[in-house]
Amino acid sequence: MLFCRFASTASRRLRPTISQLLAQEPDPQVILSVTGHIKSVRKQKRVTFAAVSDGSCPDGLQAVLSPDDAHTLTNGCSVRLTGRLVQSQGKGQAKELQVDKCEVIGTCDPEIYPIQKQVLSTEYLRDHVHLRLRVDSIASMLRVRQCAVDAIHDYFRREGFTHVHTPIITGNDCEGAGETFRLSPVAHRAGSSLPPTEFFDRTAYLTVSSQLHLEAFAHAISRVYTLSPCFRAERSQTNRHLSEFWMLEAEWGFVDRVGDICDIVEDSIKHILNHPGLVGDLDVLWSNGDAERKQGVLEAKGMTPWARMSYTEAVKELEKVKSKFESEPIWGKPLKSEHERWLADQVVKGPVFVTDYPSVLKPFYMRANDDGKTVACFDLLMPHLGELVGGSLREERVDLLDKAIEHHGLNKRDYSWYRDLRMYGGAPHGGYGLGFERLIGWMTGIENVRECIPIPRWAGKLLL
Amino acid sequence: MLFCRFASTASRRLRPTISQLLAQEPDPQVILSVTGHIKSVRKQKRVTFAAVSDGSCPDGLQAVLSPDDAHTLTNGCSVRLTGRLVQSQGKGQAKELQVDKCEVIGTCDPEIYPIQKQVLSTEYLRDHVHLRLRVDSIASMLRVRQCAVDAIHDYFRREGFTHVHTPIITGNDCEGAGETFRLSPVAHRAGSSLPPTEFFDRTAYLTVSSQLHLEAFAHAISRVYTLSPCFRAERSQTNRHLSEFWMLEAEWGFVDRVGDICDIVEDSIKHILNHPGLVGDLDVLWSNGDAERKQGVLEAKGMTPWARMSYTEAVKELEKVKSKFESEPIWGKPLKSEHERWLADQVVKGPVFVTDYPSVLKPFYMRANDDGKTVACFDLLMPHLGELVGGSLREERVDLLDKAIEHHGLNKRDYSWYRDLRMYGGAPHGGYGLGFERLIGWMTGIENVRECIPIPRWAGKLLL
Repeated sequence: MLFCRFASTASRRLRPTISQLLAQEPDPQVILSVTGHIKSVRKQKRVTFAAVSDGSCPDGLQAVLSPDDAHTLTNGCSVRLTGRLVQSQGKGQAKELQVDKCEVIGTCDPEIYPIQKQVLSTEYLRDHVHLRLRVDSIASMLRVRQCAVDAIHDYFRREGFTHVHTPIITGNDCEGAGETFRLSPVAHRAGSSLPPTEFFDRTAYLTVSSQLHLEAFAHAISRVYTLSPCFRAERSQTNRHLSEFWMLEAEWGFVDRVGDICDIVEDSIKHILNHPGLVGDLDVLWSNGDAERKQGVLEAKGMTPWARMSYTEAVKELEKVKSKFESEPIWGKPLKSEHERWLADQVVKGPVFVTDYPSVLKPFYMRANDDGKTVACFDLLMPHLGELVGGSLREERVDLLDKAIEHHGLNKRDYSWYRDLRMYGGAPHGGYGLGFERLIGWMTGIENVRECIPIPRWAGKLLL
Repeated sequence: MLFCRFASTASRRLRPTISQLLAQEPDPQVILSVTGHIKSVRKQKRVTFAAVSDGSCPDGLQAVLSPDDAHTLTNGCSVRLTGRLVQSQGKGQAKELQVDKCEVIGTCDPEIYPIQKQVLSTEYLRDHVHLRLRVDSIASMLRVRQCAVDAIHDYFRREGFTHVHTPIITGNDCEGAGETFRLSPVAHRAGSSLPPTEFFDRTAYLTVSSQLHLEAFAHAISRVYTLSPCFRAERSQTNRHLSEFWMLEAEWGFVDRVGDICDIVEDSIKHILNHPGLVGDLDVLWSNGDAERKQGVLEAKGMTPWARMSYTEAVKELEKVKSKFESEPIWGKPLKSEHERWLADQVVKGPVFVTDYPSVLKPFYMRANDDGKTVACFDLLMPHLGELVGGSLREERVDLLDKAIEHHGLNKRDYSWYRDLRMYGGAPHGGYGLGFERLIGWMTGIENVRECIPIPRWAGKLLL
């Protein structure tokens, strides 16, 4: 036999990260190695301090070196440092690495390194998106996303939900809710004389929402959720929109009150906010942020329960102060961004669920209320942000669904599969969608969703 | 104030699922309700047994009803059953629900229900993809995916990796590794006389691999992974290919031996196989499968470590039995599927890492070995499947990378960002990609990857 077998035992395979090291009690007898990138170097007469980061925590590790060892260190270079972890003598950190051996693995010319120490503009960093991940605030955002994802999985698992992967390429454009991206026809094999044709048997789009697909799942395995990329080919440039974004969508059966859906939304967001791993990175991200907004986030975490009002009640509130708005609040018209913010910022001073919008404002699938005018839905509005979540009960009554499809000018044949879900063992059900980057922005005070996703996509620009 | 606040206390918000109920000690004093779909009804003279499922576990729950209560029950209808959970008197289940009240929530006409009890063909179920999720084997596959996802997150978190969301829409086509989907130009606003134009500033593709992007992350936060949708516009129809599939990709810095990458691959797959939640669903899925293949999966779990051989050694093994193959094994030519399977099925009788392929066979980014002929890479070949994982060290030496880009006929300008990663604090690094549906197929014995994903996509067909 020509092949060989190697030993494989360790319960943890890779060397500890800086975060894992800092969680241990330091033992000055143990020689250990740390790898990472140099974030700053502070030279004193007899000793040099260097901050080394491997991305595992916001602070990195303070390394203490002799000036001889340290003279090759520059910001951005990659290193392997070998030494002993000890209690720090200085302020600002509990532990530090007394370095015996310093190896520069990859140099970084400080004269031309694009990520200089001074504050770099948001636009400049977007243009250097492949390197901006090395900036502390962007790295903190990545870890906040990680904590939020962990908390989402944790919450939904506890509540008996199954995570499912919904398709990205789809034949339907959901609610017709916005511009959709379409796939180009595809060439046949190289050398073929045939012109490119549709790859599938009909036009294919990128999904704008997984909801309709999730409804099929919910009629089979009751409680499902997905955190999935979604796409909108929207040319307008705002600080709340991306062409490619991630959406948390949950859907479950045997729920018949909008308030029960709001309960899950509220619980799950609080569960995310309470993730213990967030603290250090939120400190980094809020350090330059608006103290009042930060306070609002902290208060929302403790507020029980979040306020709820109907659309009709909301419009009455807005009418009281209609001179404050550019657009007059009128029952039957959509709430504008200024209205939404007023409700959250001024009326409630916290998150607010606005429920039971007029049916003319909402997509065909929302469940009709008995009043014949409104549907059983809600938007969750957050202070300083506006809409974070939208959800509803879905129409499970076949006759009313048929009417709604007709009423919205949709082709009944396109929705025959959707109708089947109700025909064969249908049940009251509902769910919601939460814009993941908006949540990250609200939690962290980051102004623009382009800084809430590692590699953002928007009209007119495509890097990497 | 018009809005009101509701109480919100429960540590678990929704009623327990069947899986959660079955994990408790039954208390016949407690009246409880279960919701779900009826999977089968067995009528006896004095009593009716019904299997009710909410998708939370493979077996569902046995409900015991009076014939009067049960007469409206049909396969596929949705129900709410209220009663007491007791130790079962019968065989086949430990607990059962003694039903006091049976409510049919949504009827299901047994005459026309497309999901009849008899065995339905794979093709028929693909044509009814919105309903096939109700079939036991598909539901089991969904839960197996869930367990695998959980195990992946658990493993990588332990090893200090950060989960990142990589972009789906991209300007590069990675290794030029296959046909890529392209986005169509997008219309301007309704009413505009402008013709549709590229939405971004250049042609946009759907990603075929997140690897190059992950390398940018690994140069900032060291250890990263993603479980992301990937796309190939490949018209050929095999049981191992989908147009839209999920890929686990991991990338990390400061690794300089291919064997160290193989260690992580092997550990992580074993971690998935050892997930305790898999047992019941694997029993369902293997019940009609090939016993020998199942045995192979079980043995791989315990085999330590998995075999490793170089490509050169592999070709020598194949040359010994070259009369067995349609294509002659020749050094410098790709291994064909028949070769890969021979190595795993016959030579090793288990998983095997084949390493150090000739550089002419592999993409530009793989790290050159000192022999000048091969690159530091591997494929993991599984019995009965062939390639499951591919990975490598990446070329971190700028001069050698430049040569490789030129050698592969690529445009250096397109990769300037990728080159920057090496220019500014580069480090040895590597990673791999694992086809998630192939893993599910190998673990479960499911023949075709179209049954390893809830809503499959392939050339010529687009449902839902």
